Amino acid sequence: MFKTLSCPRCGHGISLFANPTPTVDVVVYLPWRGVLLVERGNEPFGYALPGGFVDEGETAESAAVREASEETGLEVVLTGILGVYSRPDRDPRRHTMSVVYTALPMTQDEPRAGDDAARAAYHPLDRLPRPIVFDHEEILRDFADSLARANRYVSKALKG
Amino acid sequence: MFKTLSCPRCGHGISLFANPTPTVDVVVYLPWRGVLLVERGNEPFGYALPGGFVDEGETAESAAVREASEETGLEVVLTGILGVYSRPDRDPRRHTMSVVYTALPMTQDEPRAGDDAARAAYHPLDRLPRPIVFDHEEILRDFADSLARANRYVSKALKG
Repeated sequence: MFKTLSCPRCGHGISLFANPTPTVDVVVYLPWRGVLLVERGNEPFGYALPGGFVDEGETAESAAVREASEETGLEVVLTGILGVYSRPDRDPRRHTMSVVYTALPMTQDEPRAGDDAARAAYHPLDRLPRPIVFDHEEILRDFADSLARANRYVSKALKG
Repeated sequence: MFKTLSCPRCGHGISLFANPTPTVDVVVYLPWRGVLLVERGNEPFGYALPGGFVDEGETAESAAVREASEETGLEVVLTGILGVYSRPDRDPRRHTMSVVYTALPMTQDEPRAGDDAARAAYHPLDRLPRPIVFDHEEILRDFADSLARANRYVSKALKG
């Protein structure tokens, strides 16, 4: 599949392969604090998982650790892949394909917003702020489901 | 991160965001047949997992099912994500980021090579053909390790 780009000087049409743009998002969760979200400083406004574009020459894992650090000030250790989210309408700006990692913070430090995040904080899974942008509400539901599934046969009800 | 493209008509330099290109690969495995590999009809020559580029407007899951079908003639059902592989040097042609799905064939039909695959066949995991291109040897090792780990406490030795 191709897309056409116009040369800004001469207007010539240039054909390029059209692919989704690869991104990463990170679910950082501590049971007694909740999940780490950023409040976006740019459109679309609202709450989102820390994340961003994978740069050429960079691994997806490096991008995930870098974006978490840039947006929340926290160093994280990746613990797995929750899923890959690539619905063409998941981001209103363009088609992105996001690898969503689960991670733990390296310390109990308070998050500190940076880059294009206006705020960064932990939020209990059962009291999430709104609106949550992109498809991050679906991702957070999948994460909560995976926690619930893993704890299905624990007699005490799961909280937080 | 940016890359510069030259307009083929006027030579004007056009700055574009530089990201890896998203791809998918599929590990189709049946214990009594082995893993489904294609013999590539184009460079780099050798054996590879079925897979290819994710098109704009297409989900990663759709791309995985489509590529498996185009290259091997088999309809598959996805069973999970083995991992995401994005080392910048994994493909000699350009930086790609591949979501590797595990899958099962919908039928026991023989594979039939198509698209840029010269041949398609199942190969026992312990008698893989060579050379295996890209980082698909590493992916197949990770897959074999995941099988071995899942069967670690089975007293009978795992074969195939």
